[in-house]
Amino acid sequence: MTATTSKAPRESQTVMTTIVLASETNAHNNMFGGDLLALMDRACAIAAMRHSQFEVVTVSVSHVSFDQPIPLGTTIEVVAKVSKSFGSSMEVFADVWIDDISTHKKTKSNQGVYIFVAVNDNMKPVKVPELVPETEEEKERFMGAQQRRELSLIMSGKLNPKEAIELKKLFLD
Amino acid sequence: MTATTSKAPRESQTVMTTIVLASETNAHNNMFGGDLLALMDRACAIAAMRHSQFEVVTVSVSHVSFDQPIPLGTTIEVVAKVSKSFGSSMEVFADVWIDDISTHKKTKSNQGVYIFVAVNDNMKPVKVPELVPETEEEKERFMGAQQRRELSLIMSGKLNPKEAIELKKLFLD
Amino acid sequence: MTATTSKAPRESQTVMTTIVLASETNAHNNMFGGDLLALMDRACAIAAMRHSQFEVVTVSVSHVSFDQPIPLGTTIEVVAKVSKSFGSSMEVFADVWIDDISTHKKTKSNQGVYIFVAVNDNMKPVKVPELVPETEEEKERFMGAQQRRELSLIMSGKLNPKEAIELKKLFLD
Amino acid sequence: MTATTSKAPRESQTVMTTIVLASETNAHNNMFGGDLLALMDRACAIAAMRHSQFEVVTVSVSHVSFDQPIPLGTTIEVVAKVSKSFGSSMEVFADVWIDDISTHKKTKSNQGVYIFVAVNDNMKPVKVPELVPETEEEKERFMGAQQRRELSLIMSGKLNPKEAIELKKLFLD
Amino acid sequence: MTATTSKAPRESQTVMTTIVLASETNAHNNMFGGDLLALMDRACAIAAMRHSQFEVVTVSVSHVSFDQPIPLGTTIEVVAKVSKSFGSSMEVFADVWIDDISTHKKTKSNQGVYIFVAVNDNMKPVKVPELVPETEEEKERFMGAQQRRELSLIMSGKLNPKEAIELKKLFLD
Amino acid sequence: MTATTSKAPRESQTVMTTIVLASETNAHNNMFGGDLLALMDRACAIAAMRHSQFEVVTVSVSHVSFDQPIPLGTTIEVVAKVSKSFGSSMEVFADVWIDDISTHKKTKSNQGVYIFVAVNDNMKPVKVPELVPETEEEKERFMGAQQRRELSLIMSGKLNPKEAIELKKLFLD
Repeated sequence: MTATTSKAPRESQTVMTTIVLASETNAHNNMFGGDLLALMDRACAIAAMRHSQFEVVTVSVSHVSFDQPIPLGTTIEVVAKVSKSFGSSMEVFADVWIDDISTHKKTKSNQGVYIFVAVNDNMKPVKVPELVPETEEEKERFMGAQQRRELSLIMSGKLNPKEAIELKKLFLD
Repeated sequence: MTATTSKAPRESQTVMTTIVLASETNAHNNMFGGDLLALMDRACAIAAMRHSQFEVVTVSVSHVSFDQPIPLGTTIEVVAKVSKSFGSSMEVFADVWIDDISTHKKTKSNQGVYIFVAVNDNMKPVKVPELVPETEEEKERFMGAQQRRELSLIMSGKLNPKEAIELKKLFLD
Repeated sequence: MTATTSKAPRESQTVMTTIVLASETNAHNNMFGGDLLALMDRACAIAAMRHSQFEVVTVSVSHVSFDQPIPLGTTIEVVAKVSKSFGSSMEVFADVWIDDISTHKKTKSNQGVYIFVAVNDNMKPVKVPELVPETEEEKERFMGAQQRRELSLIMSGKLNPKEAIELKKLFLD
Repeated sequence: MTATTSKAPRESQTVMTTIVLASETNAHNNMFGGDLLALMDRACAIAAMRHSQFEVVTVSVSHVSFDQPIPLGTTIEVVAKVSKSFGSSMEVFADVWIDDISTHKKTKSNQGVYIFVAVNDNMKPVKVPELVPETEEEKERFMGAQQRRELSLIMSGKLNPKEAIELKKLFLD
Repeated sequence: MTATTSKAPRESQTVMTTIVLASETNAHNNMFGGDLLALMDRACAIAAMRHSQFEVVTVSVSHVSFDQPIPLGTTIEVVAKVSKSFGSSMEVFADVWIDDISTHKKTKSNQGVYIFVAVNDNMKPVKVPELVPETEEEKERFMGAQQRRELSLIMSGKLNPKEAIELKKLFLD
Repeated sequence: MTATTSKAPRESQTVMTTIVLASETNAHNNMFGGDLLALMDRACAIAAMRHSQFEVVTVSVSHVSFDQPIPLGTTIEVVAKVSKSFGSSMEVFADVWIDDISTHKKTKSNQGVYIFVAVNDNMKPVKVPELVPETEEEKERFMGAQQRRELSLIMSGKLNPKEAIELKKLFLD
C-alpha cells in the first residue's frame, strides 16, 4: 500500500447518529457529559483511522464545551473531521448537533478537540498524510491548530511560553 | 407545524458509523447477529422519525441477510433510508458497510427491511409524508415495497395469497 | 463424538426469562425493537447450538412481528425452538411471551424466524441432525419452512420465482 | 384478584439461559463472580414475583458457591425456584448449570440462596402464598430454610444463638 | 518479588464511589440488588488482589444484607477490606455507604462477605500474606471469620457440625 | 440547610477504583480513551456535588492527557478533587493512577480538568462554597485556575486575548 501524501477533511469525515438512551442520562433526564465525551472520542478515532489508514491512540482532549443539556430521547449527530496533521499526530474536531425531529432544526450543542497518534501493529508511531483544508471553517481550524498545540505544550510544561511563536501573536499583535 | 406532503429518501437518510466492540462479539471474535440487528433498528428508527417528524414504533423486520462475518475492531457504517410510506407506516432499508481502514474499500455485509408506524404522544398512528424516490436503487426498492407488504400479510395470515396482486405477478408473468 | 441423526424440537428448546430494563426502553417507556431483536437472536443461537452441537452464525432474520408495546419492568419469556434443518442450516422460531405477574396470564407479543449455519472451529459449515417435529405447531412450522426458504431465495435474487415449487402452490392451487 | 393460598415451586420456576459474553469475563477469560451474582438475583427476583404476584425487593443473599470457572462463550442455565415463604418473605434458590454444547452434559457450577420481600405499590410488605414443596430436593430445601433463617438472624445480631431452636439441633443432636 | 509475610487491612482497602444509573434500577426507581452485588464483588476482588498481589477468583458470597432501598441518582461508596486470610483464601468485607450530597450524612445500606482464592497464571492457588487487624472493627471481623468459615463448610456438607469448634461455642457457652 | 462558606479539597475528594473490562478495550487490548473520559467525568461530577451539595452539569473539559496505554485487567484509581470555585462554577482535577498489583507501584497515567456548574431543581445555577487549598499541589492548581479560565474564554471567542490579565503574564513577564 502506498500512502497518499495528502487528503481533504471530507475524505475521512465520520458521522455517528444516535438517540440518547436512559442509561446515558442523569437525575435531570439529561445526557451525562461523560457518555457524550466517549461518543465524541469514538467518532474522532474513526476519522483519524480513516485519515491515517492505521490504528490510532488518543493522546489528549481539550476545549470540549457543553452548551446546552441534551434530554433523554434526543436524536444527536456527532460529526468528526481531521483539522490538521503533524507527523504522526492528528487533531480532530467533533461537532455535536441536536436534531429536533419535529422541526428539522439542527442546533450545535457541543464541540471538542481530540489529538490522536497513528500506530502500527507494534504500537510504534507512523507518519500520516498531510491535511489539506477546503472549506472556510476547515481553513480556520487548520490555522488555529498551531496555537492550540503550543498551548497544550505550555500547559503540560513541555514548552516555555516565551517560545510559543503562534500563541504569543494573540497577545501581542 | 404544517406537514410536508412528500419527501425524498435523502431528506431522512441516517448514517451511524461505529466500531465493533469486544462486548458485541462471539467466541469467534465476530460481531453477534443480535447486536447488529439492534444497531440497524436504531438507525432505521431515526430515519423514520426524520421522515415522519413523529416518534415511531417498530412493526416488523424482514429480509435481514448476514453475508459475511464482521470481526472485532471493524469500522462499520449503517445507512438507513425510507423506501416507501403507506398511510402511517414506513418501510426503511438498512445497509451495513464494512469500511476497511487500510484500503479504503467499502464492502456491503448486511441488508434489512424494517417497518415502523409513526405515533403521536398518545401512541395513536399519524399520517406520514409520501416518499418520492430519486435514484435508481431508491426507485427499485419503492417498486418492490408492495410485493414485500403482500408477502408479509400472507405470512401472518392476514391476506389470502390469491388476492396478492403484485406478488402473484412474480410467479405468473 | 458421533452425531445423532435426528432430534425433536424439545431437545434444543431454549427459554430466556428476563425483565425489561430502563436501558432497553424508548421515550414512551416501552422496549426498543432492537433490544428485543438481539435477545431473540441470542435465544435462537443457543437453540441452534444445542441442536447442532456446534457453534453457529446468523444467516438471516425474517418475519419478525411486534404486536404490542412491552413496557418497562415487564417480565418476558423468549422461547426458541428449531423448526427445520437443511444440510448445515437450521430455521429457528423465537416466540416472545409477556408474563403478567399479577394475573399469571401469558400473552404472545412477538414472533420471528432466524436462520443459522453450524460451523466448526475453522468456520466451515458442518452437517446438522434432521429435525423431527412432534406437536401440531411444530409440524406446521416444519411444513412452512420450505416456502419461507424459497421466498428468501427469491427476495435475494438467488431463485427464479418460476422455480419456487412450494411457494407457487400458495398462489395457484 | 384473589390470592392463592399455596403454590408449588414449579408454578414460579424461572429459567434464564444465556451465553457468557466478553464483557462479563476477567483477565483469565472466565466469568466474573459479580456478573453471575447479578444474573442469579435477576432470575430469583422473577421467581419471587411469580410466586407472590407482587413486586419484590432483595433482602439478603447467602451461601453462594462458585465451584468451577465458567469460560467465555459457555452456555449457562440459571434456574430459580422458591424454597419457602415466611409471611411476606420468600427464600429462593438459584442453581447455575453449565451446558456443554458438544456433549449435552449439564454440570452444576453454582448455587445461591436469595431472600426477597413482596411489596405493594407503596413499598409496603404484603403477605405471600405458602410454598408447598413437591420433589425430594424441594422438601429438603424447605426443611433447611428455618436453620438458614436463624443463622442469618444470629449473624446480623438479631437473634441470640441460645434461642436458635432449629440450628441448635445441628450441634447437639 | 519477595512476598510480605503480613499486611494490615488498610494496605489493601479499596474504595469505589459511584452514582446509581437508570440502567441499574427497577420499576420503583431503586437500585437492583444484582447490580449492587456485582459492584461489591468488583471492589472486594481488587482488595483481595492488592492483599495477595495475585489474580483472584470468587469462591463464595454470604451474609449480604440489603437494609434500605437506594434510589436512582444516589452517590454510593463501596469500601472493601480483607478481614482474614487462610492459606490461599481471603475473606473480604464490603460495606456500602449512601452519601447524602445535600446533608453530607453517610448511612450504611449494605454489608457482605466475599471469599476469594489467589491464583497464579496457571490458575493454581498461591499462599497469601497473613492479615493483621488494627482497628476494633477489624479485630472483631477477624475473630468472627473462623465461625463464618465453619458455617459455610457445614452448609455445603463439608464439615460435620459436631466438629465445628468455634461455632459450637456460640450455642453452648 | 446552611451552606458552608468554604471547604478544603479533601472534604469532597472522590476515589473510584475499578478494573479495565474487555468491553472498554480496543483492538490492541488497551482501554479506549472515551471510556476513561467518561469515568473521569463521573468521578469529577461526584466531587463537585460533594463540594456544592447540589446537582451539577458538565460545562467543559480540557487538558486531558493520555500518557500511556492501560491494558485490559489493569486496576486503576481515579481521584477527583475540586481545585477552585468561581460563583456557581467549580474546576475539578481528575488524576488517574495505574495500580500495579504485583509490585504495589502506582503510576500516573492521565490527568484532566473538568468544569461543572451547580444547579438547583429548576436547573438554575446556585452559588457554591469557596475552595481553600491546603497541600502544595492544591495551591498550585488553585493558582493556575485563573489562567486556564482565561484560556478557555479566549478559545471560545468570549474574551479578547488583550484582556487576559493572568495569561498575558505567562508570555510577557
